[in-house]
Amino acid sequence: MTLTIGVDVGGTKVAGGVVDDTGAVLVQVRRDTPAEDVGKTRDVIIEVVTELAAGRAIDAVGIGAAGWIDASRSTVLFAPNLAWRDEPLRQYVSDAVGLPVIVENDANVAAWAEFRHGAARDAEDSMVMFTIGTGVGGGIVLGGDLVRGAHGIAAELGHMLTVPDGHQCGCGRLGCIEQYASGNALVRFARAGARQEPHRATALLRLAGGEAEAITGPMVTAAAQGGDPVSSEAFAQIGRWLGTSLADMAQILDPQVLVVGGGVIDAGDLLLGPTRRSFADALAQRRRLPVADIRPAELGNSAGVIGAADLARRL
Amino acid sequence: MTLTIGVDVGGTKVAGGVVDDTGAVLVQVRRDTPAEDVGKTRDVIIEVVTELAAGRAIDAVGIGAAGWIDASRSTVLFAPNLAWRDEPLRQYVSDAVGLPVIVENDANVAAWAEFRHGAARDAEDSMVMFTIGTGVGGGIVLGGDLVRGAHGIAAELGHMLTVPDGHQCGCGRLGCIEQYASGNALVRFARAGARQEPHRATALLRLAGGEAEAITGPMVTAAAQGGDPVSSEAFAQIGRWLGTSLADMAQILDPQVLVVGGGVIDAGDLLLGPTRRSFADALAQRRRLPVADIRPAELGNSAGVIGAADLARRL
Amino acid sequence: MTLTIGVDVGGTKVAGGVVDDTGAVLVQVRRDTPAEDVGKTRDVIIEVVTELAAGRAIDAVGIGAAGWIDASRSTVLFAPNLAWRDEPLRQYVSDAVGLPVIVENDANVAAWAEFRHGAARDAEDSMVMFTIGTGVGGGIVLGGDLVRGAHGIAAELGHMLTVPDGHQCGCGRLGCIEQYASGNALVRFARAGARQEPHRATALLRLAGGEAEAITGPMVTAAAQGGDPVSSEAFAQIGRWLGTSLADMAQILDPQVLVVGGGVIDAGDLLLGPTRRSFADALAQRRRLPVADIRPAELGNSAGVIGAADLARRL
Amino acid sequence: MTLTIGVDVGGTKVAGGVVDDTGAVLVQVRRDTPAEDVGKTRDVIIEVVTELAAGRAIDAVGIGAAGWIDASRSTVLFAPNLAWRDEPLRQYVSDAVGLPVIVENDANVAAWAEFRHGAARDAEDSMVMFTIGTGVGGGIVLGGDLVRGAHGIAAELGHMLTVPDGHQCGCGRLGCIEQYASGNALVRFARAGARQEPHRATALLRLAGGEAEAITGPMVTAAAQGGDPVSSEAFAQIGRWLGTSLADMAQILDPQVLVVGGGVIDAGDLLLGPTRRSFADALAQRRRLPVADIRPAELGNSAGVIGAADLARRL
Repeated sequence: MTLTIGVDVGGTKVAGGVVDDTGAVLVQVRRDTPAEDVGKTRDVIIEVVTELAAGRAIDAVGIGAAGWIDASRSTVLFAPNLAWRDEPLRQYVSDAVGLPVIVENDANVAAWAEFRHGAARDAEDSMVMFTIGTGVGGGIVLGGDLVRGAHGIAAELGHMLTVPDGHQCGCGRLGCIEQYASGNALVRFARAGARQEPHRATALLRLAGGEAEAITGPMVTAAAQGGDPVSSEAFAQIGRWLGTSLADMAQILDPQVLVVGGGVIDAGDLLLGPTRRSFADALAQRRRLPVADIRPAELGNSAGVIGAADLARRL
Repeated sequence: MTLTIGVDVGGTKVAGGVVDDTGAVLVQVRRDTPAEDVGKTRDVIIEVVTELAAGRAIDAVGIGAAGWIDASRSTVLFAPNLAWRDEPLRQYVSDAVGLPVIVENDANVAAWAEFRHGAARDAEDSMVMFTIGTGVGGGIVLGGDLVRGAHGIAAELGHMLTVPDGHQCGCGRLGCIEQYASGNALVRFARAGARQEPHRATALLRLAGGEAEAITGPMVTAAAQGGDPVSSEAFAQIGRWLGTSLADMAQILDPQVLVVGGGVIDAGDLLLGPTRRSFADALAQRRRLPVADIRPAELGNSAGVIGAADLARRL
Repeated sequence: MTLTIGVDVGGTKVAGGVVDDTGAVLVQVRRDTPAEDVGKTRDVIIEVVTELAAGRAIDAVGIGAAGWIDASRSTVLFAPNLAWRDEPLRQYVSDAVGLPVIVENDANVAAWAEFRHGAARDAEDSMVMFTIGTGVGGGIVLGGDLVRGAHGIAAELGHMLTVPDGHQCGCGRLGCIEQYASGNALVRFARAGARQEPHRATALLRLAGGEAEAITGPMVTAAAQGGDPVSSEAFAQIGRWLGTSLADMAQILDPQVLVVGGGVIDAGDLLLGPTRRSFADALAQRRRLPVADIRPAELGNSAGVIGAADLARRL
Repeated sequence: MTLTIGVDVGGTKVAGGVVDDTGAVLVQVRRDTPAEDVGKTRDVIIEVVTELAAGRAIDAVGIGAAGWIDASRSTVLFAPNLAWRDEPLRQYVSDAVGLPVIVENDANVAAWAEFRHGAARDAEDSMVMFTIGTGVGGGIVLGGDLVRGAHGIAAELGHMLTVPDGHQCGCGRLGCIEQYASGNALVRFARAGARQEPHRATALLRLAGGEAEAITGPMVTAAAQGGDPVSSEAFAQIGRWLGTSLADMAQILDPQVLVVGGGVIDAGDLLLGPTRRSFADALAQRRRLPVADIRPAELGNSAGVIGAADLARRL
């Protein structure tokens, strides 16, 4: 049995783990991310790997990070929440720890984890995953491999155009799906609903101390699970848009499995019910032709470590 | 040098050709399609293949047809313009002509032809192609192979959602890209423009005998090339929507090359200028990151024969 | 008690009646419209008036017709379903019958009837009415009078923009409300639903002999009333768009009463339930501020005769 | 010659003036608005009126304020930028200064000023005005009077629905015209353009110290007038949406004149050119039928004082 190390570099924490070939995480460590300091973030990654590797036979290291990674999986071109710009992370870490290293985008890593050891582990060929965080990330597996694109930047699913002239996205355009199916959109819909119809959002507003502007994503989830109508409708809204985008992916790539990940899936059918209905509506003209089913992700916060470690195994 | 036969089965004609491994068409034959009669269409295909194969050493036969083809490339599940439903075309033709046969969707075939011997022949890995006919078809090449999907039905690019609650599509939904970037959309935009502003559509209306309802696609192309403002704007409209969808594909799959085919490309920059501007606008946030360029298809009506023959070569 | 005559000139019939000052219709006659012949249509109107006036003391005559009427209520500028272009109808009929005559647009006439003797008879000042036929017509009363506009062409409510780049309207633009809240839209939504989900439209398809293309408005109403899901959803769709437009009118004109007329109101709450919910959603930010309520029209097919007669009374 | 006083209560200043029956402002005073203190704002209004009335024969006082005013023009129901809620302003000021008082919404006051003494002074009957500030306000004159609505809240033109599921409005809904044709929208479009295409916004970015987020409305106007492409396009974008809404108003009310006011009209044809083109496109189906022309407002910042004084004259 070979062991590899996976490292998940987020905006607030660096998590690392030793993972075996069944996807089991044998040991895990976690450090705060010194996000504003490029050099220190690298040092923390090296500390984490060194600590995990001590006394173990490790074959390779995989690192997942939010950002655009180049086609050779070596350099972080741009990371919105970290200070990296054209950071040659692979070389740096490899030199420091003396092991082969691979760097990959975090949404790709999560998709790979679900494909290999999670919700799509029965699929041998293809999967598309939407990861719903504050934004919307994507990962695509075809022919048993991640689709990385000619320039390393495929699967940017969050910026598909959804509503022409719609809500302005952080990227500058109007109407990206990220503005309709993300955690931020969930909160925006819930706040608007609570302002407009406070009597139907009493449970939600109680959690937020009476202030619509204080509403957060976990509050919407908690209130929706308790039956709060405005909170449930906020999930239904993002679910409907998500179903439409999943249908686009089914028509473009026709994968074996579609996966939805991220904290919002804690809401269960409150999210996935409307998602599946809007997906089915959008594909009604295909009638009896088979289509992928939509599954919630299974690996939660461990997906980053498991996926990065498994990618390292393939070096 | 090996030879294969490619057959392009359209709603009005069956074209076949003997093609060598450079993509050159050595001989060609053409018959009318007896579209309403399943049996006769098969017979015409067999006649065409038999005639072309006579006296030549042929390795295999590829057939392209408009319709949904199953994942094993054997059966036409549904062909909107032909009478086929679950037609086991591969077996039937193979038995009749004694050669290996492969059946493929026509837009996939055209994309394959451009990838191997046309506008994207310098790309060794990936390409996405939109074929603009009366509708919108698509073909995707990744890792040097056509993406066919888990159920054989990938690359249905014409039915990506573009305008929520928009123009009704033949498939029943509102707002598919086919309603905004197809030849039918071109004609619809031109007719509306000519009705609204006849004084800016004098050249176009002259071609149509003064009747907006009599305007056809070739008239719009001819008038636009002569400087007719309403006709040029109709091309600009479909170009803008097409650019948006191409940008979606760049973000989803990040291919090496993007290709636009179909009769509308005769309009040249009248179409591709607005297409490229809207594509660049949609991707402006990627700044200096590289992205595929958009090229017109090069093989025209021969793409069907060349692509089908080349796919047969890979059996 | 004074009596006036109202005439309702439609595309298929000319209806006339003698009406008293309570809005009661004392006598009525009805003729087929010779729609293609300008002269004969005028003759039929004169016949109807002459027959009704015989032996009675009539003060004046009102005529309602589908079309654009000039600001002096004398001339039919354009009537889409009749042959009239710049027809001086008022002068012609007045000369022939020897009575004062007024000509008015049919949707205005219906609105006036509901304001005076129908659903808004308790309102003394203001009302906005949408008439849902194959298209969408409108009528506005402010300060106790019809709003006719500086050029006689106000209240063209059917062509308010609703969906940018949306479904193409007969007027040439994309996205007019007429394409989302009319009888034609109801049928379009129902046909699309029946094609996409035939198993949820069994009752509707039975009425249509199994053919989605054969579905008509009355079939959708009948099936919806019997519980057919696709038919109910078609009403909900037009209701949602209608509620949005009613909310726009509440914000623009803040009338005492909003009225919805036309054959679709036979569907009752199947239409007006979704209409009222979408109206309330759109105005939620007004909170406790009062707003007009939405009422179904009460006078049905008699509105044309009653309204035209009442307008004549005010000459 | 009679004199009246007009007071314009804004979020930052209270302006007052003595106005004669030709609309000339004879004397003017100006104070800062103590916006957070209800009592002090009333006191400042009374000080201003008292100072202006001293030694003059004043007939009445008109007050314009941003907010919802009740139907009897007495009470400020809600003022978003002031502390007033259900404030009986008319009674309070009248008691203090011993003169008849009328209270009116500020956008209505500005519209009335333009109707009586400004851009629409040749119109005797009807006018619709859009006032483009940070938001979008409206005023409607029909039959020579302001349309105030059954509940005092007509002419809320800023919240007409323009893009279904579009940009979120401060009122909670998605897609109000205020999000597409306001000063805030101008800035949003300009910032997005400068972020996406900085090389086409060099003049604008220079004014903003290189920071897209520092761009303000006056910078966009200045840069557009100097030929900055991104700034000009920002004006064209709001102009196109504004033209669409003006076309809706032409179809709903068919007024004699349409007026556009607010600081953005300093941009002249950069705004009004695209506005008029989109207006004409939207009404193309009316062909030769006459329609109002679109004029820029003429009274600028004095409209509030002049309009309020003129309304007082009609008490």
